[in-house]
Amino acid sequence: MAVERAGTAPVRGFLLDITGVLYNSCHGTDGISIPGSIEAVKRLYAESRVCFLSNESTNTNENVVSRLGRLGFTVRLEDVITPAPVAAEYIRRNQLRPHVLVHPGIRSYFTALEQPDSPPNCVVMGDAEDEFTYSNVNAAFRVLMKMERPLLITLGNGKFYQRVDGPAIDVGAFAAALKFATNCEHVIIGKPQEDYFQSAVNKLGLKREEVLMIGDDIVSDIGGAQSWNIRGVQVRTGKWRPEWEDHPSVKPFRIVNNLQEAVDTILNNGHF
Amino acid sequence: MAVERAGTAPVRGFLLDITGVLYNSCHGTDGISIPGSIEAVKRLYAESRVCFLSNESTNTNENVVSRLGRLGFTVRLEDVITPAPVAAEYIRRNQLRPHVLVHPGIRSYFTALEQPDSPPNCVVMGDAEDEFTYSNVNAAFRVLMKMERPLLITLGNGKFYQRVDGPAIDVGAFAAALKFATNCEHVIIGKPQEDYFQSAVNKLGLKREEVLMIGDDIVSDIGGAQSWNIRGVQVRTGKWRPEWEDHPSVKPFRIVNNLQEAVDTILNNGHF
Repeated sequence: MAVERAGTAPVRGFLLDITGVLYNSCHGTDGISIPGSIEAVKRLYAESRVCFLSNESTNTNENVVSRLGRLGFTVRLEDVITPAPVAAEYIRRNQLRPHVLVHPGIRSYFTALEQPDSPPNCVVMGDAEDEFTYSNVNAAFRVLMKMERPLLITLGNGKFYQRVDGPAIDVGAFAAALKFATNCEHVIIGKPQEDYFQSAVNKLGLKREEVLMIGDDIVSDIGGAQSWNIRGVQVRTGKWRPEWEDHPSVKPFRIVNNLQEAVDTILNNGHF
Repeated sequence: MAVERAGTAPVRGFLLDITGVLYNSCHGTDGISIPGSIEAVKRLYAESRVCFLSNESTNTNENVVSRLGRLGFTVRLEDVITPAPVAAEYIRRNQLRPHVLVHPGIRSYFTALEQPDSPPNCVVMGDAEDEFTYSNVNAAFRVLMKMERPLLITLGNGKFYQRVDGPAIDVGAFAAALKFATNCEHVIIGKPQEDYFQSAVNKLGLKREEVLMIGDDIVSDIGGAQSWNIRGVQVRTGKWRPEWEDHPSVKPFRIVNNLQEAVDTILNNGHF
């Protein structure tokens, strides 16, 4: 179904962030689904096209889908994009030798790429959570200090994400730490990077202007999408903050209470 | 003794960084004195005026002096300035309620200032070393996120310092992380802050142009000093890097191999 709106192209497909849009995460558990999101995802699968474009870097795509299943969502593995496998492919394609600082949940993507007999020539870092010890951060720092042109690759560049018990500082902050200390080059794999959005638009088989990005991160999701000519819809769930209603640099195409409101409004009325 | 040099004021006193100039630190031990530094300090005490201006934030001033004593240095407690007691005084004077993330070695400076019954209105952070766990960094982040005008006070703002086993990432990097994630205001207590240099110049009872700062950190020591009209002498010990010989923003007054060379050259010859 194509949804028309005066002055803009019809919406033919949806890019959905996962954490903070489908569910709220909770350290050590599966988290809690956000009311209405299960039904909204069901409706999108039935009436439109959907791709899940996440910066999640603590679980493999398979585990993301299983966890969503335990929370009550039906999501197909081939519709999920997360940065870790994309980064692994980037490292392989560029024949890099990574020093890896990631969450144990995605370590498996990088194991075959580490070359213990040669010095690493980049650091790859995700939301490592409790693996962000001083010793591990310092080890990454030392690798960068040894490189003539230090290169840091991060899985997204988020400031923080929302857990049930409060906000949790994210990989972007630790990237800022390493950049301050080493002046390294920084390659981001994930939102808000253009290629990452484009890969999701390709998956939908649509044009950028036919697609909506729905997310809770005003910088990575909304600002990112809108930089690349994709309309961004900010939800008031997950990490959303009241002050973002008047954000200094990002003006979302729309702000809605939650995923269900966005999906029902568009699919019922043909527009916002 | 006053040392003359054409076109500049005579050198009547010396500000000395400690780590990387007097000795190299080594995690878990007292570290190793840098050859010639013990004699150089002895000579400065005998023939000039000296103040030790450090960004050390893992030991109290008393412990800094005892450790230097065990390494063979004779240094008077009243000649040592480190940021922690200065920051404690700043917090007291401004009636702030700090959330504290510092090394256990300096915790005692802040214990009486913490007010467990009221929410903190600033974060004070030093080189916490192994206390920089994800959980502790995240707790500091959450405190800042709750404040309307988040305020971070750090003990210095170094990128890294040199340990015997390699470089160690410093508090400035973790400050960059919190600034990226929260957009907080950042007050630095320590080098390169003007008041901090001035307090050392006052201690010597001299004018800025009569004083030399000798340090291993081209930004905090040399750049800092020179911003405030104090000549900076870079030593090729401690964290010194060959690429700093042609640093893009800081041109030291002089670069010398070590503290002893600087002290002997000036005191023997009257100039560099």
